[in-house]
Amino acid sequence: MSKSPFDHLRRALTHGATTPELDGVRADLDRAERCGLAEVVYCQGKTPDAVLSACRRLLTRNSQVLATRCTPEMAEQVGVALRDDGFEIRFETGTLVVRDPHAPAPDAAGSIGILTAGTSDWPAASVAKLVAQSAGCTVHVFQDCGVAGLHRLVEPLEALIEADVAAIIVAAGMDGVLPSVVAGLIDIPVIGLPTSTGYGHGGSGEGALTTMLQACAPGVAVVNIDNGVGAGAMAALIAKRVNRG
Amino acid sequence: MSKSPFDHLRRALTHGATTPELDGVRADLDRAERCGLAEVVYCQGKTPDAVLSACRRLLTRNSQVLATRCTPEMAEQVGVALRDDGFEIRFETGTLVVRDPHAPAPDAAGSIGILTAGTSDWPAASVAKLVAQSAGCTVHVFQDCGVAGLHRLVEPLEALIEADVAAIIVAAGMDGVLPSVVAGLIDIPVIGLPTSTGYGHGGSGEGALTTMLQACAPGVAVVNIDNGVGAGAMAALIAKRVNRG
Amino acid sequence: MSKSPFDHLRRALTHGATTPELDGVRADLDRAERCGLAEVVYCQGKTPDAVLSACRRLLTRNSQVLATRCTPEMAEQVGVALRDDGFEIRFETGTLVVRDPHAPAPDAAGSIGILTAGTSDWPAASVAKLVAQSAGCTVHVFQDCGVAGLHRLVEPLEALIEADVAAIIVAAGMDGVLPSVVAGLIDIPVIGLPTSTGYGHGGSGEGALTTMLQACAPGVAVVNIDNGVGAGAMAALIAKRVNRG
Amino acid sequence: MSKSPFDHLRRALTHGATTPELDGVRADLDRAERCGLAEVVYCQGKTPDAVLSACRRLLTRNSQVLATRCTPEMAEQVGVALRDDGFEIRFETGTLVVRDPHAPAPDAAGSIGILTAGTSDWPAASVAKLVAQSAGCTVHVFQDCGVAGLHRLVEPLEALIEADVAAIIVAAGMDGVLPSVVAGLIDIPVIGLPTSTGYGHGGSGEGALTTMLQACAPGVAVVNIDNGVGAGAMAALIAKRVNRG
Amino acid sequence: MSKSPFDHLRRALTHGATTPELDGVRADLDRAERCGLAEVVYCQGKTPDAVLSACRRLLTRNSQVLATRCTPEMAEQVGVALRDDGFEIRFETGTLVVRDPHAPAPDAAGSIGILTAGTSDWPAASVAKLVAQSAGCTVHVFQDCGVAGLHRLVEPLEALIEADVAAIIVAAGMDGVLPSVVAGLIDIPVIGLPTSTGYGHGGSGEGALTTMLQACAPGVAVVNIDNGVGAGAMAALIAKRVNRG
Amino acid sequence: MSKSPFDHLRRALTHGATTPELDGVRADLDRAERCGLAEVVYCQGKTPDAVLSACRRLLTRNSQVLATRCTPEMAEQVGVALRDDGFEIRFETGTLVVRDPHAPAPDAAGSIGILTAGTSDWPAASVAKLVAQSAGCTVHVFQDCGVAGLHRLVEPLEALIEADVAAIIVAAGMDGVLPSVVAGLIDIPVIGLPTSTGYGHGGSGEGALTTMLQACAPGVAVVNIDNGVGAGAMAALIAKRVNRG
Amino acid sequence: MSKSPFDHLRRALTHGATTPELDGVRADLDRAERCGLAEVVYCQGKTPDAVLSACRRLLTRNSQVLATRCTPEMAEQVGVALRDDGFEIRFETGTLVVRDPHAPAPDAAGSIGILTAGTSDWPAASVAKLVAQSAGCTVHVFQDCGVAGLHRLVEPLEALIEADVAAIIVAAGMDGVLPSVVAGLIDIPVIGLPTSTGYGHGGSGEGALTTMLQACAPGVAVVNIDNGVGAGAMAALIAKRVNRG
Amino acid sequence: MSKSPFDHLRRALTHGATTPELDGVRADLDRAERCGLAEVVYCQGKTPDAVLSACRRLLTRNSQVLATRCTPEMAEQVGVALRDDGFEIRFETGTLVVRDPHAPAPDAAGSIGILTAGTSDWPAASVAKLVAQSAGCTVHVFQDCGVAGLHRLVEPLEALIEADVAAIIVAAGMDGVLPSVVAGLIDIPVIGLPTSTGYGHGGSGEGALTTMLQACAPGVAVVNIDNGVGAGAMAALIAKRVNRG
Repeated sequence: MSKSPFDHLRRALTHGATTPELDGVRADLDRAERCGLAEVVYCQGKTPDAVLSACRRLLTRNSQVLATRCTPEMAEQVGVALRDDGFEIRFETGTLVVRDPHAPAPDAAGSIGILTAGTSDWPAASVAKLVAQSAGCTVHVFQDCGVAGLHRLVEPLEALIEADVAAIIVAAGMDGVLPSVVAGLIDIPVIGLPTSTGYGHGGSGEGALTTMLQACAPGVAVVNIDNGVGAGAMAALIAKRVNRG
Repeated sequence: MSKSPFDHLRRALTHGATTPELDGVRADLDRAERCGLAEVVYCQGKTPDAVLSACRRLLTRNSQVLATRCTPEMAEQVGVALRDDGFEIRFETGTLVVRDPHAPAPDAAGSIGILTAGTSDWPAASVAKLVAQSAGCTVHVFQDCGVAGLHRLVEPLEALIEADVAAIIVAAGMDGVLPSVVAGLIDIPVIGLPTSTGYGHGGSGEGALTTMLQACAPGVAVVNIDNGVGAGAMAALIAKRVNRG
Repeated sequence: MSKSPFDHLRRALTHGATTPELDGVRADLDRAERCGLAEVVYCQGKTPDAVLSACRRLLTRNSQVLATRCTPEMAEQVGVALRDDGFEIRFETGTLVVRDPHAPAPDAAGSIGILTAGTSDWPAASVAKLVAQSAGCTVHVFQDCGVAGLHRLVEPLEALIEADVAAIIVAAGMDGVLPSVVAGLIDIPVIGLPTSTGYGHGGSGEGALTTMLQACAPGVAVVNIDNGVGAGAMAALIAKRVNRG
Repeated sequence: MSKSPFDHLRRALTHGATTPELDGVRADLDRAERCGLAEVVYCQGKTPDAVLSACRRLLTRNSQVLATRCTPEMAEQVGVALRDDGFEIRFETGTLVVRDPHAPAPDAAGSIGILTAGTSDWPAASVAKLVAQSAGCTVHVFQDCGVAGLHRLVEPLEALIEADVAAIIVAAGMDGVLPSVVAGLIDIPVIGLPTSTGYGHGGSGEGALTTMLQACAPGVAVVNIDNGVGAGAMAALIAKRVNRG
Repeated sequence: MSKSPFDHLRRALTHGATTPELDGVRADLDRAERCGLAEVVYCQGKTPDAVLSACRRLLTRNSQVLATRCTPEMAEQVGVALRDDGFEIRFETGTLVVRDPHAPAPDAAGSIGILTAGTSDWPAASVAKLVAQSAGCTVHVFQDCGVAGLHRLVEPLEALIEADVAAIIVAAGMDGVLPSVVAGLIDIPVIGLPTSTGYGHGGSGEGALTTMLQACAPGVAVVNIDNGVGAGAMAALIAKRVNRG
Repeated sequence: MSKSPFDHLRRALTHGATTPELDGVRADLDRAERCGLAEVVYCQGKTPDAVLSACRRLLTRNSQVLATRCTPEMAEQVGVALRDDGFEIRFETGTLVVRDPHAPAPDAAGSIGILTAGTSDWPAASVAKLVAQSAGCTVHVFQDCGVAGLHRLVEPLEALIEADVAAIIVAAGMDGVLPSVVAGLIDIPVIGLPTSTGYGHGGSGEGALTTMLQACAPGVAVVNIDNGVGAGAMAALIAKRVNRG
Repeated sequence: MSKSPFDHLRRALTHGATTPELDGVRADLDRAERCGLAEVVYCQGKTPDAVLSACRRLLTRNSQVLATRCTPEMAEQVGVALRDDGFEIRFETGTLVVRDPHAPAPDAAGSIGILTAGTSDWPAASVAKLVAQSAGCTVHVFQDCGVAGLHRLVEPLEALIEADVAAIIVAAGMDGVLPSVVAGLIDIPVIGLPTSTGYGHGGSGEGALTTMLQACAPGVAVVNIDNGVGAGAMAALIAKRVNRG
Repeated sequence: MSKSPFDHLRRALTHGATTPELDGVRADLDRAERCGLAEVVYCQGKTPDAVLSACRRLLTRNSQVLATRCTPEMAEQVGVALRDDGFEIRFETGTLVVRDPHAPAPDAAGSIGILTAGTSDWPAASVAKLVAQSAGCTVHVFQDCGVAGLHRLVEPLEALIEADVAAIIVAAGMDGVLPSVVAGLIDIPVIGLPTSTGYGHGGSGEGALTTMLQACAPGVAVVNIDNGVGAGAMAALIAKRVNRG
């Protein structure tokens, strides 16, 4: 029987199926199944206890969880507890990756590329990488390809074409120029990921976001400033479609 | 020999190959070849003569051209001249579609979906449809699925799942809520197309754009307000990748 | 004799009745009587002494006071002093509730509902709850009903219909989509309470506020970002009217 | 059997009930039934034919329709056609009111008040009045009560207290001060309706909206600039609740 | 010989008179003489040494200096040093007032009034008071007259009329409504002083500033948010003119 | 008996004196008496009939009225009618000045100065001039003193000092630099009047407004963009105080 | 004797030399001499008579004048009159160039380059060209070099290096990416000229301006949106310095 | 053979020359050669190790590096290490200047001027000075020339004329008025450097930036707020051109 996007809603409406409430929270435990992406816990402004509890709740039905915007201290505290629970833990550029070692790896889901304009774009790009990898994608990363030294773009872009990636995430802050240049050169979908670098007028990523929204070259869509989760999710969904054929 | 995104640039740098200048304009005649999308002439603020001349120049190397933001009067004037030149002409919701009848149809490039929240979203969505069609995509359109009457969304969304579309463009103005709701239900890439409807604070599409950038559900990327060309191009590039396998 | 909204003003104008000045402050001690709501002390940026003094002044004529945006440290310091004065103290999610145990409970004032999109919306929603309760309302709360998992909304909304609430406060940050969806489904007044979650463009609640102001579904009015006091007050005034018949 | 807000959605999900598509539009014909408010057609940017067709479609299931932002020319053209169809027509300050003369009048739904700061606020306030009246409310209107002449507020406000209105819509542009002053004097819910008067910094109603969102006095909720439909709908929903007891 | 505003400039242009450079700074030592106001040192972002050095330099030609946005720690450190130099020191709400005890008091310069809407407006209003006093003005202050309790305004406003003040500074944050109400009642120049209270949309004083700029009642001019120096200076210049007759 | 700002309000509260309603408008007929300024009718967006009716209503109790933002066509139509009524009519730079020839001239109210940076600032400055003149002020005007040619400022500024004006209105658009320069040179209150000239970023007067709000030199207060009425009223109130001594 | 920038100011201050007032305007007739640039009359919002009068006044002391933002109708009317006066007239892309045929040509002032991203950037770039030419510069123009087709940039940029231009004006709208790319490749000063093309978020040139202000590559300075006069003047001043050696 | 701006790019495209990747970073080591400016490391948000590593990498091919926004602690730590490597170290107002003592000094590159409006503008201006000096320029600095005391400008401006500087950087915060005044007086290119001083509306340098973009006097170009690097680079490129003749 074909799967409908409304299956959960229909069940709720017809069978009175309630969403279980744990610790006063009505978590959506089946999003991974419905949308094909790992669950993400956003740590900023939360206590380690709250993050730990959210991770545990999600891990009852998911085999992996990402905790983003996680300080090293929080990663330490939450990670130790989850390792004691038997999970595999990895901490990378502010993201805690938690996996059930007994669960099967996610199905291979094609490959994507990530380009960054400068080193400051890495924190946001790194989240995108981890989200895409957790969805089963192979991720090809090339850093520091900003247009202030245009020749640096040649090798990475030819390599991504060679790898036949399904989509390219281009992360850039300040003037956010790189996605426009890339999209003018290729026929692969470009996902612009503006990052909150830059100061003064248009700082904090607003300038980069605007540039990407105004991109003359077609084939660019954009996520919000520093929204690495969104960029990785979008790229992964495209790659999964492509991979499925 | 494998194709590189830098082929044109390399040729310019090594052979001194110049971009032909016609009527004082250094048009990029090969973008369609490089990026796989039909060329678009943006009519607003141009005279019919300028539009006609731009179309003719592009048609020397391309088999189709879209002239967007075209008034009926301009469409009439430009269309008659191009029909006299032997081209096939169609005018649809402000876009003039020009095709060389002797050129082969574009290769089939998979299918995409378009959902609109209300009737005012159609002008922008229509451009997206034509751009995707001109790239060879089959386009499934469902209008008036806004969340003010949520039940209207059921049938269209199930139909798009059934059609196995590669991506869904969701056009919405005012509160721009529809992409958030759709992305929470499916695992297909959603391209948010904010439209310039709505008035007061957040009017002219700024509210809709912001909503889509802030979407909680992952799997949404956004183009600029009323940028139907960008939405259609992004969806077509995804569909072409998927179709190629 | 019928009560006029201008009674205090008329008295000031005709009898030269002065507003008593205590500690250099011309507090409006009778607002509770005039408007039917508990007095609120906004703690942010104030010293514990200033908060304590403001509470004591208001408690000379009011039987309850809420101190909002109160840190645990301030709550501890102010709370102990007021408990020594003989008041009942409760501290909940950043709000200190102070009550005269000998004063009669507020008259029953009907019931209202509160829905939150996610856990980050609770601090603002919690203030709304306490304000409405202090006005005598019964408050039905359902958390985590965000549209990223639409099926979670079914049970709470049907429960609120069943409880026949006079108004529903819908608290949401980021894309602020929930009030639009709720208002499209019911004929109960919805008070949108945007919360300061979200980052990047439209972050800090600006996106959520805009979405709610642009809501296509009629029956939504909005208070400012994080203004839980305003949302609770508005809902309570409605409930009191409804309860009075 | 109790009515659920999800009835239409459940039907769509379980019986495959489709929303009828007329002229390519998937109109939500049952919103009046679901939400208790007359349907509104927003005329701006539409042709008379489109407005006429939208009205006729909605009148197949609704006994009244309001066409807002309607020019006298459009009102003339659309009105004559609908009168020929047998409907009752009234044109008032840019709104065309269409009623089926054979349908029963809406149930009496309590009373509301409308205050305007100046004459420029009337177009928006007028729409609010018509929306509330079409929902069965009695509407008490007092114009020109702006605080530049504070004494003008006395008589209207005492009259609204006397009339025991369920809610008061306060329409104001420029500095948008009036709702703050009114809410400081009464215990009736105030719905702030900012209007697009004023020029320079904070012009076009942005200043008035901001003032109302920042109102110090509790008991104010706000709709978007010039959103008379939203203000009238909110007030009517409150009045209906109050009237029902 | 009559004094010209260009005296200093003329001297510089004709006699090559140079502005003395001390510690690498070209201070304008004669502004007090030229404009009739005490010199102000803005402390924020400066070290105590820099503030001390600036004060000393200005005190070589001025009999008084105000150091604004001064923390208690800085006031302590700078104040002790200047007291050792023989100056009179006073610290009040973040402003350090330094006076040469041997200099004559400033000439009496008429009287002004200051009204604040709430207690949070005092820091900005306090600076205005000190600036005006240092220019020789008598200052009548009334706090907590916000329109949320309109009757509190009666006594202060009648007292200011009685005192025949030359101008009234009205300090208000959040909705910034008070200057509009005051200016509608009197024929005395009102200087709106928006303060950086309030949160959410229009917070940090932007809403209050906008309200004052949009004030319907004529007779209001505005200074920037928290610019107590500017408000006090403007009021003092008016009072000096009035006093001179 | 001393006059109180609350006289009208007190009368309304104690004697139930109603504000007369003419043609559905609750005009504030006594503002001139209360605030000492001529009444102003803002014409933009009104019909000639509405303007005529407003003028006539105000002239029942006032001896002069200014109709601002008045087109020559409207001035012709309204002016002829009022001249037939027996009033004196003058039309100047978009403002229609209407006076009762039998009424005494306003009391002499001292003198003010007006400086403009360029010719485009005249429309706003002209309104300020007429408002001040109608209040009895002598107005000294000097145009085209912008800092792009600083020497042009010498003669006008020395003349204003010589004339001993009570206040100077400085009108400037684009960079709005002139008030900063003037305030640095004199000890007369400066009222900054930003005008809506300039394009691009900070165009339409927003840049000029910001510059004036940020002015380093104390002694500047600001009115809204193009608010000539507000600037003229403020200057006139100052001049009247000064003149009274 | 060496020339001082204060010569005019000194003369005004010491000799009481007045700026001649013609037709009520205090024009700065000697700016060309002082700053080395032709005078510009900004036509928008002015009548043909006002433009003609301004041109004539300036031509009494200047040998050439540019009238920018000039419609063809105004150019016709003003141009005929000035030709009758004996001046040479040229009209180009909205700018009327007026020259005294008997005056010597401006001294040769070196060469500059202008690059545009697309055809829509020409109106602004054209003004820059005319301003620089009128200052005696040789101007090398290359159009349509936008990065959507990067290879188009090669030939123009190598030609400008070859021509050894003193500065390059880079005009671009929408994403405004071109100056960033150019400045990363060369060591010639780049003047970014954002143009008001583009729509939606960051439209009207705001996006292009922000991009240029955020440019990562050093060696870019920016003028306001559409400020061709400013860009041309800046480039000309640089070229004159370079030429002088 | 003549040097082309595309040399690096051509080599990358034809010889497959890769940009060396060190520590995962694809640094552009030849920008100094290509653009003639010292390399800059932006320290904010980086660890001392990252800064040290970036400096060392760049110093492999450059003889000098500037590390900006460097705290004294970081300067201490990084400086000691680099001194141990044998480099010459200087720390000035937040910038660490690193030079290879064995490398030849940069070629003399003409002179530029720097003016600041106040002492708070020095941090940004200081960076500009160091960047220009590192490019071989002689830099003439005059501080505290703000228009609040206009006579202070005379001596510095005449000295800069005397020194025949190629360009003048004018740094100003708050109202940012100084560049407008300077550009009206001279025919030297002015580079406006807005600084992030000022509070309230237009604070953080936004007001100063807008003023400079709106400058009426031609001959001003602008860099972003606090972008001392950009201002210094632009001035140096101009001076190098001038010096070369």
